Amino acid sequence: MQTKTESKTLLQKEGNFSEWYSEILKRAEILDIRYPVKGVYVWHPYGFRLRRHVYAILRALMDNEHEEVLFPLLIPKDELMKEEQHIKGFEEEVFWVTKGGSTDLDIPLALRPTSETAIYPVFKVWIRSHRDLPLRIYQIVNTFRYETKHTRPLIRLREITSFKEAHTAHATRADAEQQVKTAIAIYRKFFDLLDVPYIITRRPAWDKFPGADYTLAFDTLMPDGRTMQIGTIHLLGESFARTFDIKYEDTDGSLQYVNQTCYGISERCVASVISIHGDEHGLVLPPEVAPIQIVIVPIVFSRKGGEVNNACAAVYEELRNAGLRAFLDNSEERPGAKYYRWEMKGIPLRIEIGPRDLRNDSCVFVRRDNFNKVQVPLRAVAQEAKSALEEIQSCIQERANETLFARIYESEAKDAGIEEEMVTLRDKVKQGIVSLFLCDSERCGKDLEESLDASILGEPISGVQSEGKCIICSRKARRVYVARAY
Amino acid sequence: MQTKTESKTLLQKEGNFSEWYSEILKRAEILDIRYPVKGVYVWHPYGFRLRRHVYAILRALMDNEHEEVLFPLLIPKDELMKEEQHIKGFEEEVFWVTKGGSTDLDIPLALRPTSETAIYPVFKVWIRSHRDLPLRIYQIVNTFRYETKHTRPLIRLREITSFKEAHTAHATRADAEQQVKTAIAIYRKFFDLLDVPYIITRRPAWDKFPGADYTLAFDTLMPDGRTMQIGTIHLLGESFARTFDIKYEDTDGSLQYVNQTCYGISERCVASVISIHGDEHGLVLPPEVAPIQIVIVPIVFSRKGGEVNNACAAVYEELRNAGLRAFLDNSEERPGAKYYRWEMKGIPLRIEIGPRDLRNDSCVFVRRDNFNKVQVPLRAVAQEAKSALEEIQSCIQERANETLFARIYESEAKDAGIEEEMVTLRDKVKQGIVSLFLCDSERCGKDLEESLDASILGEPISGVQSEGKCIICSRKARRVYVARAY
Repeated sequence: MQTKTESKTLLQKEGNFSEWYSEILKRAEILDIRYPVKGVYVWHPYGFRLRRHVYAILRALMDNEHEEVLFPLLIPKDELMKEEQHIKGFEEEVFWVTKGGSTDLDIPLALRPTSETAIYPVFKVWIRSHRDLPLRIYQIVNTFRYETKHTRPLIRLREITSFKEAHTAHATRADAEQQVKTAIAIYRKFFDLLDVPYIITRRPAWDKFPGADYTLAFDTLMPDGRTMQIGTIHLLGESFARTFDIKYEDTDGSLQYVNQTCYGISERCVASVISIHGDEHGLVLPPEVAPIQIVIVPIVFSRKGGEVNNACAAVYEELRNAGLRAFLDNSEERPGAKYYRWEMKGIPLRIEIGPRDLRNDSCVFVRRDNFNKVQVPLRAVAQEAKSALEEIQSCIQERANETLFARIYESEAKDAGIEEEMVTLRDKVKQGIVSLFLCDSERCGKDLEESLDASILGEPISGVQSEGKCIICSRKARRVYVARAY
Repeated sequence: MQTKTESKTLLQKEGNFSEWYSEILKRAEILDIRYPVKGVYVWHPYGFRLRRHVYAILRALMDNEHEEVLFPLLIPKDELMKEEQHIKGFEEEVFWVTKGGSTDLDIPLALRPTSETAIYPVFKVWIRSHRDLPLRIYQIVNTFRYETKHTRPLIRLREITSFKEAHTAHATRADAEQQVKTAIAIYRKFFDLLDVPYIITRRPAWDKFPGADYTLAFDTLMPDGRTMQIGTIHLLGESFARTFDIKYEDTDGSLQYVNQTCYGISERCVASVISIHGDEHGLVLPPEVAPIQIVIVPIVFSRKGGEVNNACAAVYEELRNAGLRAFLDNSEERPGAKYYRWEMKGIPLRIEIGPRDLRNDSCVFVRRDNFNKVQVPLRAVAQEAKSALEEIQSCIQERANETLFARIYESEAKDAGIEEEMVTLRDKVKQGIVSLFLCDSERCGKDLEESLDASILGEPISGVQSEGKCIICSRKARRVYVARAY
């Protein structure tokens, strides 16, 4: 695909996030939005390579304790409708297949919005005895939502192309609770490797996953000050087990319902990497997920580029042998055009080698995250590149963490009805997350959401929990996070 | 999942293939067929691991010259209907999404039966100039067919869960023809690594892919004497380019239609590995695709198993360090039960170590393909294991090749109307493939198909082509393969 006609102007990100995001997806060749169905998009080769690296990390983490499986896309209407709470949460969002060829189907088939109702009837036949537990599986699949709101690539989709959903069954509630902790640990590791900062909260009861006992969520903060849910973990308890009759024979011969959990991550994880780290030059990819970690650019002005090209090829070989994802850009373009392209694509490290560098047996490292330049001796290039990538990985993380935590505003309000504080909160919530005291009644929750034009994320699951008075009703309350959410 | 209740009787394969196949899928835990929608199935963890290895090989081969992308599942009706020939071939097999929630969709959306009509409208915007060519992409996706015939796991499906489809665009027909050759070479390598033998033919004109200039197909021979199409390669020429208006600007400034090819492989590749190599003890997996290549079984009779277990653990470490996929089965079960399980799962090599072996500093290798046993010195275990796996890989291939080519019957009939030969052919075609002279008229083709109750696969693309007289009409004819096909 030609990049010739692209403008090379910088892309303002601050105060212009939405436009920046669309433009980056296009210029960095992540997704093509010109597909003639609302809310579905085409993954470009480069975007797909990024997706591959992100999901390879996720798979490796999941494979430790889960087995990968694959369930069908199509769910018969009667199965989908079995769990009353569950279907209430989804029924207006389900795509229905009603015809095969010119024949009307006997039973309409849903495109899975999520797979509980596809998987749990099969759990019923897989699980017989306590020896079958715990059962821990996951799959990475396309799921579908008939979104009527504004759709947005990778973020709000009609086809979620890469939903990782895990489903587990346990003998006891304590085991299921333990699995929730394991899931949190896995998701922490995953987002840490993506350098994506997060807060973890327990969603309010009225906002939990339909059919769950409770829902924990990972949210990150997007550059426009809105939070985005990037992972959820649900303790299902026995509700689905009762609906789908999933029982095991215990050691004493009695039949017991299993206790279940499920947890999911969608391609919003890719959206967060793009959105949070990128700058006005394009993507900034953490080395862990960058399809290319290092690009080597020969600086050749005369026809006598032989030596420089040879040195570049040698460096390339050395980096590859050291297990690094390197690319040698020896195309005909000017170095400046190459810089532009690889900066746009977020390659963490650029190595430039010109005749003068060669005379000093050295090369130049240019970091994508801060554009710092350093001279590096050629004999140490692989070792230095590894160190540089590690440093870039942690600097990107540090910067992202600082940005998020600087935008959490902790309300000092000690009681309800302080109008001055509400004014501050209304302002602060436009820029980030506010933390305030709220009781757990739905009524106060809805009042606050309306008053701030924001959503309650929930109570943070870690950190010191202080008690205070509800900002709406003055009753005993705990801290919750509130933000405008995607 | 419990295996306790499973019968340990041998599974007769000869003359009993259909039942054998269903039973193997269940006992080896490849697929679960108890999903409540016709023609769709659940991949078990072990089956999924096999699938992963098979598709990792395919991906690695494709990645050499293609870029992986991902297009949406849903195709608007008007796009699907654009190519007249194409839609005629599919319209009775398309699943239609007609509702989102309780709302009727404005335009029905097809679940892709294949992705030409999803991809080519985007090719139109991706391709501008001769510099954009060749364009070579592929994706691995789920596709759908409303099959009304008898469905069968991995073979005839309503959801094909892992369709690898490649799509290429070229400046000239010669370039497209060259790409067909490349595709043949890739598919040869792929099936060779799976030890799956094949014949390659050019399908008769009336049986080509809807919209293609011509279709080449890879067929293998199943144990019941029927052939199964396991790969297809289509030269599309300009037909789709004209329909979807895909043009490029040539070096002279003129606008030209691109020339296209597409080629696909479905999970029938997994079906063929299972079907062709398996025996009455279960799967026989070629080492290249076996999720576990070597299982180590300690033979411990007394409580003094410490030394044996230590030796097994050391062998395990050594094999893993040598890059082999080894598994140490130190569960509580009797060795016999372990043998049964791992034979069922097709693990190519078993290593047994007991006290007597240890005294001789040796272990026992048992090959899955022929159950041969040999003593191997422990100090050479990794090297010997590698050699054994290589030998197993090639022995499985040799056996499979011999089986296929022994079942090709070459008719010596020199003219039409020899009834005796037709009787022989009717008999031979029940056991395998027959090769005979046939002219290229559709009428003779249909006559022959009816007379033999079989299908014309087509003219083999390699080997010496002799000319003869059509077995139906005596006109000039070339050799074609005929078989009863899946």
